[in-house]
Amino acid sequence: MQSHSYADKNYGALLDPEDLPRQWYNIVPDLPEKLEPMLNPHTHEAMGSKDFEALFPKELVKQQFSQESWWDIPEQVWDAYRRLPRPSPLVRAKRLEEYLKTPAKIYYKAEQFTPVGSMKPNSALPQAFYAKKQGLSLAISETGAGQWGSALAMSCSWFRLPARIYMVRVSSRQKPGRKILMETYGAQVIESPSANTKVGKRFLTEDPNHPGSLGIAISEAIEDTFASQNSRYLLASAFNYALGHQTIIGLETLKQFELLDIIPDVMCGCIGGGSNYSGFIYPFVRKKLRKKIDTEFVACEPKAVPSTTKGQFTYDYADTAEQTPLVKMYTVGHDFANPPIHAGGLRYHGKAPSLSLLIHKKIVKSIAYPQTKVFEAAKIFAMTEGVITAPESSHGLRYAIDEALRCKKTGEKKVIAFNNCGHGLLDLSAYDEYNKGKLVDWEPKEIALKQYVTSN
Amino acid sequence: MQSHSYADKNYGALLDPEDLPRQWYNIVPDLPEKLEPMLNPHTHEAMGSKDFEALFPKELVKQQFSQESWWDIPEQVWDAYRRLPRPSPLVRAKRLEEYLKTPAKIYYKAEQFTPVGSMKPNSALPQAFYAKKQGLSLAISETGAGQWGSALAMSCSWFRLPARIYMVRVSSRQKPGRKILMETYGAQVIESPSANTKVGKRFLTEDPNHPGSLGIAISEAIEDTFASQNSRYLLASAFNYALGHQTIIGLETLKQFELLDIIPDVMCGCIGGGSNYSGFIYPFVRKKLRKKIDTEFVACEPKAVPSTTKGQFTYDYADTAEQTPLVKMYTVGHDFANPPIHAGGLRYHGKAPSLSLLIHKKIVKSIAYPQTKVFEAAKIFAMTEGVITAPESSHGLRYAIDEALRCKKTGEKKVIAFNNCGHGLLDLSAYDEYNKGKLVDWEPKEIALKQYVTSN
Repeated sequence: MQSHSYADKNYGALLDPEDLPRQWYNIVPDLPEKLEPMLNPHTHEAMGSKDFEALFPKELVKQQFSQESWWDIPEQVWDAYRRLPRPSPLVRAKRLEEYLKTPAKIYYKAEQFTPVGSMKPNSALPQAFYAKKQGLSLAISETGAGQWGSALAMSCSWFRLPARIYMVRVSSRQKPGRKILMETYGAQVIESPSANTKVGKRFLTEDPNHPGSLGIAISEAIEDTFASQNSRYLLASAFNYALGHQTIIGLETLKQFELLDIIPDVMCGCIGGGSNYSGFIYPFVRKKLRKKIDTEFVACEPKAVPSTTKGQFTYDYADTAEQTPLVKMYTVGHDFANPPIHAGGLRYHGKAPSLSLLIHKKIVKSIAYPQTKVFEAAKIFAMTEGVITAPESSHGLRYAIDEALRCKKTGEKKVIAFNNCGHGLLDLSAYDEYNKGKLVDWEPKEIALKQYVTSN
Repeated sequence: MQSHSYADKNYGALLDPEDLPRQWYNIVPDLPEKLEPMLNPHTHEAMGSKDFEALFPKELVKQQFSQESWWDIPEQVWDAYRRLPRPSPLVRAKRLEEYLKTPAKIYYKAEQFTPVGSMKPNSALPQAFYAKKQGLSLAISETGAGQWGSALAMSCSWFRLPARIYMVRVSSRQKPGRKILMETYGAQVIESPSANTKVGKRFLTEDPNHPGSLGIAISEAIEDTFASQNSRYLLASAFNYALGHQTIIGLETLKQFELLDIIPDVMCGCIGGGSNYSGFIYPFVRKKLRKKIDTEFVACEPKAVPSTTKGQFTYDYADTAEQTPLVKMYTVGHDFANPPIHAGGLRYHGKAPSLSLLIHKKIVKSIAYPQTKVFEAAKIFAMTEGVITAPESSHGLRYAIDEALRCKKTGEKKVIAFNNCGHGLLDLSAYDEYNKGKLVDWEPKEIALKQYVTSN
């Protein structure tokens, strides 16, 4: 059958909808080292899949422990992806290049076209699908700035599954938009810390107006899941299955670059928990590990939460209340104070284990940016390409611009690709601060990390 | 050359980017009657193209008076369209159909994917392009809720033309998002009424906190244009050229339905000034006037501003301060009070002359909806299709749903198409009111219209 894919080096590439991948890629069996097991927070013993089934849907636990390289995408999820719509375009940022006067070529994967404006539904849809298929009657989760929460609320409404979402109080108050979005999809949104859980009550006792944090919201969601009948916890990032689902981004991107007959020299993107960037690069990392390509990978994080640039690769809790297993990852510590930055999606203290390992092994580099430099990049992008990037995505964009400027000096014609994981139309107050010169930078003075388990 | 267009009755149709139309369609020579001339507001004499060149860019004046059926799209505008991106998808709303249990098929044209979230750049881009090409140094305009203003600001930044935009004060205060968006694109935004103009000062004297209206903002923009060196006024809707530019929507839709081998039975959409809906249907109206198809056209307006359902087809001013020419159109009167509690957009008192004539001649029907019914439709759409429609677009969606429900009763398998002219991610406060049951309906008790010129 004839393909309807379209490629033009000046504009980018659009895939034939029939060429939307039918499988996700799981990097775990290809990693240069075995991932360290998650440990029971009390006994410090390695945990197996059975230990997770009370908290997560079965199929997701299976994927979490999977040693298979490829997972079939269920037909209903494939159909839902199609309607997001996927495949998403790979776009040439030609006007940005012209503005920078660079010989480099800049392409970006445009993940901002989903109904909620980010790539989050790539994992929220299958998670909601598997939960519904298992016959569960409630999905519970948490959200910081609301990107994950709104994607999950949409996905649960898609598969007709009730959802309850704990939203970090300060985000809920400062950016009511995403809360309204979740409610419009029919989800129940609870400000965290809340009186719904013991953990929440503890923090409310300390401070009745406690601003909350992602770590606390995770603790509440987990406690509530164990307390609620026939419910499971659906999580945004970091876990192997969330990263696997997001490889739909990179698998499409790979096909698109093949259509353009290009191998990107550099691939950059932002890291919060790490799922969007991992999803973007893992199909390329697979090729690099097989020595078929020599692409450089650069993960970009905020200086306010410098997990991979100033944190440690060690065991730490995934939540604040120390309820979750201990995970071997880059972290600035699970008691890290909520950083005052606008990229709400990048506030999390830890990073995905597989990505952490790849950074530790120097297969993926990482860099940290202060937010004023990030918004400067976002403003340039808006004025040239017309697109308002999410504060999160703008971290990857910043690196793309800096690399293009280096090429201007050296004359190199590198191909630079970044993942535009979302738009910033619900983050305009941050742009307003930047426009008015009110945005300030912040970074932690020192990061004192407790060692929970001696690193192997 | 092989086409890369894709069509599937279950999903919709995507056009090959190379098939993006190269010409706009101008309905004027095909209208069943000649359009009445615009009249000088003081002498009531018919105005010619020369009378407009001090206010509008030359090429736009030429298009306004054009009797040609087709206008070439300049290469730079075609390229800009491509990068919006265009062509936009035609989408099957299959999940909505399933929810409604209707035998009807519902398709929508997805205009929400532009950087500003609406179809407005379709005209803002060529307007900014022509202004820049003429060597002008400033574009001036006005905006209500900010859809047009943000599209114009983006387009002016695209073609590197400074922009000054008068924004209705109450919108600027209630919905700061679009103001920030305009500023992010580098435009100067002035709350209207302002002390910048005589008109503005007059209203500020009456009430220092005057909420403003679109009619007043138009008056200010026009006064400022005449007072400013080498500037012209770029306008959102109603004029023939704005409608012509928007036919890019309908021309694509026509190709897409041809690919699907479908002739839509009903095409509906919302009308404010009338440009998005005209752009959507005019290429089909052309075929209907030639008796090649028998599609039914239904224009949807709010009951709060019932121009075509309770207003008159007569001469009226386009602005509040009576500075503009008199235009023969459907109107509720240029002194129509701003509806007090209206969240649904579409507040302008008049409608485009060509569309008004087609409604008057019963070639296009019209219907008015109260906003609670409109948001009910939007909520159903969000819960089924996942997409948050703009309150404006939801008027067309409401008709599509009602027609699909009629088909459920009669068993008819009609194909219903509506234009989803924008998303509602910057209108979430209105959704919040609806979610909380706080949204109320309002409609004018009576509409007393002055006759300015005896209707011919």
